[in-house]
Amino acid sequence: MTELSLQEKYAPKSICFGCGPANSQGLQIKSFPQGDIAVAHWTPKPFHEAFPGMLNGGIIGALLDCHSNWMAAWHLMNKTGADQPPCTVTADFAVKLLRPTPSKGEVELKARVAESKEDRAVIEAELIAGGKTCATCRGTFVAVKPGHPAYHRW
Amino acid sequence: MTELSLQEKYAPKSICFGCGPANSQGLQIKSFPQGDIAVAHWTPKPFHEAFPGMLNGGIIGALLDCHSNWMAAWHLMNKTGADQPPCTVTADFAVKLLRPTPSKGEVELKARVAESKEDRAVIEAELIAGGKTCATCRGTFVAVKPGHPAYHRW
Repeated sequence: MTELSLQEKYAPKSICFGCGPANSQGLQIKSFPQGDIAVAHWTPKPFHEAFPGMLNGGIIGALLDCHSNWMAAWHLMNKTGADQPPCTVTADFAVKLLRPTPSKGEVELKARVAESKEDRAVIEAELIAGGKTCATCRGTFVAVKPGHPAYHRW
Repeated sequence: MTELSLQEKYAPKSICFGCGPANSQGLQIKSFPQGDIAVAHWTPKPFHEAFPGMLNGGIIGALLDCHSNWMAAWHLMNKTGADQPPCTVTADFAVKLLRPTPSKGEVELKARVAESKEDRAVIEAELIAGGKTCATCRGTFVAVKPGHPAYHRW
Protein backbone atom coordinates (compact mmCIF):
# COMPACT_ATOMS: atom_id res chain seq x y z
CA MET A 1 0.00 0.00 0.00
CA THR A 2 1.40 3.38 -1.00
CA GLU A 3 1.38 6.06 1.64
CA LEU A 4 -0.79 9.05 0.74
CA SER A 5 0.45 12.60 1.04
CA LEU A 6 -1.45 15.03 3.28
CA GLN A 7 -2.97 16.61 0.18
CA GLU A 8 -4.07 13.29 -1.33
CA LYS A 9 -5.55 12.12 1.98
CA TYR A 10 -7.32 15.29 3.11
CA ALA A 11 -7.87 17.38 -0.03
CA PRO A 12 -7.94 15.06 -3.05
CA LYS A 13 -10.26 17.39 -4.99
CA SER A 14 -8.23 20.55 -4.32
CA ILE A 15 -7.37 22.57 -7.42
CA CYS A 16 -4.75 24.72 -5.67
CA PHE A 17 -1.94 25.75 -8.05
CA GLY A 18 0.74 24.73 -5.59
CA CYS A 19 -0.62 21.57 -4.01
CA GLY A 20 -3.95 20.52 -5.44
CA PRO A 21 -3.97 16.85 -6.50
CA ALA A 22 -6.77 17.74 -8.95
CA ASN A 23 -4.82 20.52 -10.72
CA SER A 24 -2.89 18.80 -13.50
CA GLN A 25 -1.31 22.14 -14.53
CA GLY A 26 -0.24 22.97 -10.99
CA LEU A 27 2.85 22.03 -9.00
CA GLN A 28 1.06 19.15 -7.20
CA ILE A 29 3.46 19.04 -4.27
CA LYS A 30 3.02 16.10 -1.92
CA SER A 31 3.80 16.72 1.74
CA PHE A 32 4.47 13.89 4.18
CA PRO A 33 4.77 14.19 7.97
CA GLN A 34 8.03 12.81 9.33
CA GLY A 35 8.00 13.11 13.10
CA ASP A 36 7.80 16.80 13.93
CA ILE A 37 8.50 18.07 10.42
CA ALA A 38 6.93 17.75 6.97
CA VAL A 39 8.93 16.72 3.94
CA ALA A 40 8.23 16.90 0.20
CA HIS A 41 10.19 16.05 -2.91
CA TRP A 42 9.43 17.75 -6.18
CA THR A 43 10.94 17.83 -9.65
CA PRO A 44 10.85 21.05 -11.72
CA LYS A 45 9.77 21.20 -15.33
CA PRO A 46 11.68 23.35 -17.82
CA PHE A 47 9.01 26.07 -17.80
CA HIS A 48 9.52 26.57 -14.04
CA GLU A 49 12.97 28.03 -14.62
CA ALA A 50 14.11 31.64 -14.20
CA PHE A 51 16.82 31.12 -16.77
CA PRO A 52 18.31 27.92 -18.20
CA GLY A 53 19.42 25.62 -15.38
CA MET A 54 18.01 27.63 -12.49
CA LEU A 55 14.61 27.48 -10.80
CA ASN A 56 12.43 30.61 -10.67
CA GLY A 57 12.12 32.33 -7.29
CA GLY A 58 8.37 32.70 -7.59
CA ILE A 59 8.04 28.94 -8.01
CA ILE A 60 10.33 28.46 -5.00
CA GLY A 61 8.02 30.71 -3.00
CA ALA A 62 4.94 28.81 -4.19
CA LEU A 63 6.48 25.48 -3.17
CA LEU A 64 7.49 26.74 0.27
CA ASP A 65 4.14 28.48 0.82
CA CYS A 66 1.98 25.43 0.13
CA HIS A 67 4.29 22.99 1.90
CA SER A 68 4.36 25.23 4.98
CA ASN A 69 0.59 25.65 4.87
CA TRP A 70 0.18 21.86 5.11
CA MET A 71 2.67 21.68 7.95
CA ALA A 72 0.47 24.22 9.77
CA ALA A 73 -2.78 22.40 8.98
CA TRP A 74 -1.33 19.07 10.11
CA HIS A 75 0.01 20.60 13.31
CA LEU A 76 -3.26 22.36 14.19
CA MET A 77 -5.21 19.17 13.50
CA ASN A 78 -3.00 17.13 15.82
CA LYS A 79 -3.00 19.80 18.51
CA THR A 80 -6.79 19.83 18.72
CA GLY A 81 -7.23 16.09 18.21
CA ALA A 82 -9.43 16.68 15.15
CA ASP A 83 -9.73 13.98 12.51
CA GLN A 84 -9.50 16.48 9.63
CA PRO A 85 -7.12 19.40 9.24
CA PRO A 86 -8.62 22.89 9.45
CA CYS A 87 -8.69 24.95 6.24
CA THR A 88 -5.65 27.14 6.62
CA VAL A 89 -4.71 30.15 4.52
CA THR A 90 -1.47 32.06 4.19
CA ALA A 91 -1.35 35.41 5.99
CA ASP A 92 2.26 36.14 5.05
CA PHE A 93 5.40 34.42 3.84
CA ALA A 94 8.95 35.73 3.51
CA VAL A 95 11.43 34.00 1.25
CA LYS A 96 15.21 34.33 1.27
CA LEU A 97 16.99 33.10 -1.84
CA LEU A 98 20.44 32.17 -0.59
CA ARG A 99 21.95 30.93 -3.82
CA PRO A 100 20.77 29.93 -7.32
CA THR A 101 18.63 26.77 -7.17
CA PRO A 102 19.49 24.19 -9.83
CA SER A 103 16.45 23.14 -11.83
CA LYS A 104 17.81 19.79 -12.91
CA GLY A 105 16.71 17.00 -10.62
CA GLU A 106 14.68 16.90 -7.46
CA VAL A 107 14.34 19.55 -4.77
CA GLU A 108 13.52 18.72 -1.16
CA LEU A 109 11.26 20.82 1.07
CA LYS A 110 11.33 20.66 4.86
CA ALA A 111 9.01 22.53 7.21
CA ARG A 112 8.68 22.77 10.96
CA VAL A 113 6.54 24.66 13.44
CA ALA A 114 8.25 27.74 14.89
CA GLU A 115 5.29 29.21 16.82
CA SER A 116 1.83 27.92 17.55
CA LYS A 117 -1.37 29.65 18.70
CA GLU A 118 -4.97 28.50 18.86
CA ASP A 119 -5.90 29.29 15.25
CA ARG A 120 -2.54 29.78 13.54
CA ALA A 121 1.06 28.62 13.27
CA VAL A 122 4.29 30.22 12.16
CA ILE A 123 6.21 27.78 10.00
CA GLU A 124 9.88 27.80 9.01
CA ALA A 125 10.81 25.93 5.87
CA GLU A 126 13.75 25.38 3.59
CA LEU A 127 14.36 24.21 0.05
CA ILE A 128 17.34 21.95 -0.51
CA ALA A 129 18.77 21.21 -3.95
CA GLY A 130 22.11 19.83 -5.03
CA GLY A 131 22.93 19.10 -1.38
CA LYS A 132 22.59 22.74 -0.28
CA THR A 133 19.91 24.86 1.33
CA CYS A 134 19.10 27.25 -1.51
CA ALA A 135 16.12 29.08 0.02
CA THR A 136 14.37 29.56 3.35
CA CYS A 137 10.88 30.74 4.22
CA ARG A 138 9.02 31.91 7.30
CA GLY A 139 5.26 32.26 7.07
CA THR A 140 2.06 32.58 9.08
CA PHE A 141 -0.83 30.26 8.35
CA VAL A 142 -4.30 30.78 9.80
CA ALA A 143 -7.26 28.42 10.20
CA VAL A 144 -10.25 30.18 8.69
CA LYS A 145 -13.69 30.32 10.25
CA PRO A 146 -17.12 29.77 8.72
CA GLY A 147 -17.93 32.62 6.34
CA HIS A 148 -14.41 32.93 4.94
CA PRO A 149 -14.36 32.05 1.22
CA ALA A 150 -11.76 29.36 1.92
CA TYR A 151 -13.82 27.62 4.62
CA HIS A 152 -14.57 24.01 3.68
CA ARG A 153 -12.97 24.51 0.30
CA TRP A 154 -11.51 21.00 0.46
CA MET B 1 2.99 51.61 -32.63
CA THR B 2 2.42 49.49 -29.57
CA GLU B 3 4.56 50.26 -26.53
CA LEU B 4 6.79 47.38 -25.50
CA SER B 5 6.99 46.19 -21.92
CA LEU B 6 10.37 46.21 -20.17
CA GLN B 7 10.58 42.44 -20.64
CA GLU B 8 9.73 42.58 -24.35
CA LYS B 9 12.19 45.40 -24.94
CA TYR B 10 15.18 44.18 -22.90
CA ALA B 11 14.70 40.40 -22.49
CA PRO B 12 12.59 39.12 -25.38
CA LYS B 13 14.22 35.69 -25.25
CA SER B 14 13.86 35.23 -21.48
CA ILE B 15 12.20 31.96 -20.44
CA CYS B 16 11.59 33.08 -16.84
CA PHE B 17 8.44 31.47 -15.41
CA GLY B 18 7.17 34.78 -14.10
CA CYS B 19 8.08 37.26 -16.80
CA GLY B 20 9.78 35.62 -19.77
CA PRO B 21 8.19 36.62 -23.09
CA ALA B 22 9.54 33.35 -24.54
CA ASN B 23 7.91 31.09 -21.90
CA SER B 24 4.45 30.29 -23.25
CA GLN B 25 3.64 28.26 -20.11
CA GLY B 26 4.76 31.01 -17.75
CA LEU B 27 2.93 34.03 -16.37
CA GLN B 28 4.41 36.39 -18.97
CA ILE B 29 3.87 39.55 -16.96
CA LYS B 30 4.49 42.80 -18.79
CA SER B 31 5.84 45.68 -16.72
CA PHE B 32 5.64 49.30 -17.88
CA PRO B 33 7.35 52.29 -16.28
CA GLN B 34 4.93 55.09 -15.35
CA GLY B 35 6.89 57.97 -13.90
CA ASP B 36 8.56 56.71 -10.74
CA ILE B 37 6.66 53.43 -10.52
CA ALA B 38 6.16 50.33 -12.65
CA VAL B 39 2.73 49.00 -13.49
CA ALA B 40 1.51 45.68 -14.89
CA HIS B 41 -1.87 44.18 -15.63
CA TRP B 42 -2.35 40.43 -15.67
CA THR B 43 -5.27 38.06 -16.00
CA PRO B 44 -5.24 34.72 -14.09
CA LYS B 45 -6.08 31.41 -15.68
CA PRO B 46 -8.23 28.88 -13.80
CA PHE B 47 -5.22 26.72 -12.91
CA HIS B 48 -3.64 29.65 -11.05
CA GLU B 49 -6.30 29.49 -8.35
CA ALA B 50 -5.94 28.33 -4.74
CA PHE B 51 -9.60 27.33 -4.67
CA PRO B 52 -12.47 28.25 -6.97
CA GLY B 53 -12.68 32.01 -7.38
CA MET B 54 -9.49 32.92 -5.52
CA LEU B 55 -5.93 33.35 -6.76
CA ASN B 56 -3.13 31.20 -5.26
CA GLY B 57 -0.72 32.98 -2.92
CA GLY B 58 2.31 31.42 -4.57
CA ILE B 59 1.26 32.89 -7.91
CA ILE B 60 0.71 36.25 -6.20
CA GLY B 61 4.26 36.04 -4.87
CA ALA B 62 5.62 35.11 -8.29
CA LEU B 63 3.87 38.10 -9.91
CA LEU B 64 5.12 40.54 -7.27
CA ASP B 65 8.65 39.09 -7.34
CA CYS B 66 9.15 39.43 -11.09
CA HIS B 67 7.41 42.79 -11.36
CA SER B 68 9.53 44.17 -8.50
CA ASN B 69 12.68 42.75 -10.06
CA TRP B 70 12.00 44.71 -13.24
CA MET B 71 11.30 47.87 -11.26
CA ALA B 72 14.75 47.38 -9.69
CA ALA B 73 16.48 46.69 -13.01
CA TRP B 74 14.85 49.72 -14.62
CA HIS B 75 15.78 51.94 -11.68
CA LEU B 76 19.42 50.79 -11.59
CA MET B 77 19.71 51.25 -15.34
CA ASN B 78 18.44 54.82 -15.16
CA LYS B 79 20.56 55.64 -12.13
CA THR B 80 23.77 54.66 -13.91
CA GLY B 81 22.76 55.99 -17.31
CA ALA B 82 23.23 52.59 -18.91
CA ASP B 83 21.36 51.72 -22.08
CA GLN B 84 20.52 48.20 -20.89
CA PRO B 85 19.25 47.12 -17.48
CA PRO B 86 21.63 45.06 -15.33
CA CYS B 87 20.74 41.41 -14.73
CA THR B 88 19.08 41.53 -11.34
CA VAL B 89 18.19 38.58 -9.14
CA THR B 90 15.97 38.33 -6.11
CA ALA B 91 17.74 38.13 -2.75
CA ASP B 92 14.55 38.08 -0.70
CA PHE B 93 10.88 38.91 -0.93
CA ALA B 94 8.22 39.06 1.75
CA VAL B 95 4.54 38.83 0.84
CA LYS B 96 1.55 39.83 2.95
CA LEU B 97 -1.78 38.46 1.84
CA LEU B 98 -4.27 40.99 3.20
CA ARG B 99 -7.46 39.44 1.88
CA PRO B 100 -8.52 36.76 -0.64
CA THR B 101 -7.64 37.84 -4.18
CA PRO B 102 -10.44 37.27 -6.69
CA SER B 103 -9.24 35.25 -9.69
CA LYS B 104 -11.89 36.50 -12.09
CA GLY B 105 -10.68 39.43 -14.14
CA GLU B 106 -7.52 41.43 -14.19
CA VAL B 107 -5.13 42.15 -11.36
CA GLU B 108 -2.93 45.24 -11.25
CA LEU B 109 0.65 45.31 -9.95
CA LYS B 110 2.40 48.49 -8.82
CA ALA B 111 6.00 48.72 -7.68
CA ARG B 112 8.18 51.55 -6.43
CA VAL B 113 11.74 51.95 -5.16
CA ALA B 114 11.96 52.09 -1.36
CA GLU B 115 15.77 52.00 -1.00
CA SER B 116 18.59 52.21 -3.51
CA LYS B 117 22.26 51.28 -3.31
CA GLU B 118 24.95 50.93 -5.95
CA ASP B 119 24.18 47.34 -6.91
CA ARG B 120 20.73 46.72 -5.45
CA ALA B 121 17.31 48.16 -4.70
CA VAL B 122 14.61 47.44 -2.18
CA ILE B 123 11.24 47.48 -3.90
CA GLU B 124 7.76 47.76 -2.41
CA ALA B 125 4.91 46.46 -4.50
CA GLU B 126 1.23 45.78 -4.23
CA LEU B 127 -1.38 43.71 -6.02
CA ILE B 128 -4.78 45.30 -6.55
CA ALA B 129 -7.84 43.31 -7.56
CA GLY B 130 -11.53 44.12 -7.38
CA GLY B 131 -10.63 47.68 -6.42
CA LYS B 132 -8.72 46.65 -3.27
CA THR B 133 -5.09 46.07 -2.36
CA CYS B 134 -5.10 42.32 -1.74
CA ALA B 135 -1.38 41.73 -1.23
CA THR B 136 1.83 43.66 -0.63
CA CYS B 137 5.46 42.72 -1.10
CA ARG B 138 8.85 44.06 -0.06
CA GLY B 139 11.92 42.58 -1.70
CA THR B 140 15.62 43.07 -2.36
CA PHE B 141 16.95 42.79 -5.91
CA VAL B 142 20.64 42.65 -6.72
CA ALA B 143 22.53 43.30 -9.95
CA VAL B 144 24.78 40.28 -10.47
CA LYS B 145 28.40 40.44 -11.54
CA PRO B 146 30.30 38.45 -14.17
CA GLY B 147 30.66 34.84 -13.04
CA HIS B 148 27.18 34.61 -11.50
CA PRO B 149 25.04 32.08 -13.39
CA ALA B 150 22.46 34.77 -14.06
CA TYR B 151 24.95 37.21 -15.60
CA HIS B 152 24.03 38.04 -19.20
CA ARG B 153 21.22 35.53 -19.13
CA TRP B 154 19.04 37.90 -21.20
